[in-house]
Amino acid sequence: MPTPTAAMLVIGDEILSGRTRDSNMNHLAKALTDHGIALCEARMISDDHDVIVRQVRELSGSYDNLFTSGGIGPTHDDITAEAVAEAMGAQCGIRDDARTILQAHYDRSGQDLNEARLRMARIPDGATLIDNPISAAPGFILGNVHVMAGVPRIFEAMLASVVPALTGGAPMISRSLRVERGEGDIAGPLGELAAAHPDVSIGSYPFHQNGIHGSNVVVRSQDGNAVDTVMGALQTHFPEAT
Amino acid sequence: MPTPTAAMLVIGDEILSGRTRDSNMNHLAKALTDHGIALCEARMISDDHDVIVRQVRELSGSYDNLFTSGGIGPTHDDITAEAVAEAMGAQCGIRDDARTILQAHYDRSGQDLNEARLRMARIPDGATLIDNPISAAPGFILGNVHVMAGVPRIFEAMLASVVPALTGGAPMISRSLRVERGEGDIAGPLGELAAAHPDVSIGSYPFHQNGIHGSNVVVRSQDGNAVDTVMGALQTHFPEAT
Repeated sequence: MPTPTAAMLVIGDEILSGRTRDSNMNHLAKALTDHGIALCEARMISDDHDVIVRQVRELSGSYDNLFTSGGIGPTHDDITAEAVAEAMGAQCGIRDDARTILQAHYDRSGQDLNEARLRMARIPDGATLIDNPISAAPGFILGNVHVMAGVPRIFEAMLASVVPALTGGAPMISRSLRVERGEGDIAGPLGELAAAHPDVSIGSYPFHQNGIHGSNVVVRSQDGNAVDTVMGALQTHFPEAT
Repeated sequence: MPTPTAAMLVIGDEILSGRTRDSNMNHLAKALTDHGIALCEARMISDDHDVIVRQVRELSGSYDNLFTSGGIGPTHDDITAEAVAEAMGAQCGIRDDARTILQAHYDRSGQDLNEARLRMARIPDGATLIDNPISAAPGFILGNVHVMAGVPRIFEAMLASVVPALTGGAPMISRSLRVERGEGDIAGPLGELAAAHPDVSIGSYPFHQNGIHGSNVVVRSQDGNAVDTVMGALQTHFPEAT
């Protein structure tokens, strides 16, 4: 089976202005890698209706799964639900199931489910709700688009309930080797090994630690035997590596 | 003058697998915001020649400036220089000026400028070199594309030498207000203010701190008087805010 693919849209002006540093993309990347899904692309975009519509159409049409974070809160700049609905050709309005969840949550906390908070019940027709165990306001799945909150602990909680249901591929086998030599010294043999094993990804990441200038070499493939073969060859080339 | 625009391409499989968490995008975002340039979009993509070519073409054609990070080291997966050259219709090969810089650097450190290290002298014809004060291997500017290293301290050093020469717009004036009320409580007035001041960006970012559930409201515009007006209105609505 080919590896299922995915893309991500991180939605929010605060990311592009530098005010907020996104952490959801890295969290999603790790979760998908563990589940055998290849994250092929991630895009950070602004809170702009037309931009969101165009990008959701492009990425949901190009990959097996699309994940979004941000823009589903109660304020005027939370416009992701309508934009995703338009991109996917669905109607969007206050939905009774989402309103019931919010009503119960605010009743418990003695707060008013006012007009602003009710915006968080805007869910496209035909979408499946994603549970929000932290602040109740749900995410949703519409077609292959998974719409989640931007606040990292809510994003992470939503993702945890979504990932088990996704079709995953064969898990990626990853092994690494620490070589206390600069990339320029090991690049020749690495390039030859990469050319000889096109189904194996061989990455090299330089480090500087306690005065040592070295490289971490990461070998990845869904074929465990191929990973072992390449790791064996690396250990022959760099017998001092650990 | 309209605000100059920019996009970023973060290039590297290690970002999309989750092994490495990117920090260059946030650094660039802050630097551009300070310089009066709007970062409109950032994309994380893999070390794939055709993908890089397509995305460089699309983004360099859509925005005033494009910045890339990653893929200019000595190993087989460092393919950014050739891909950017192809996207921009330039030839790419070992350039004498870059080779001279590398030769001097490796002579000083007593290391060999071998075939792998010489890859770092591949620079497109017509490109201007970007100084690398840390490890010598230069970045480059080709047309409106600024190609920089992925290692954060090198990316940051390169960017520092590039930004002063960029055409910036009027600086963005930003003021913020801390309101100890949840977003759902303040969203109504915020939405009305945003509708009345379309040239002012009003963002709201929830926080939970020491048991307090509140919102930071950020007001941004190139028009300082408009920012003052909105801040005044916010302080009238939320007299307890700080």
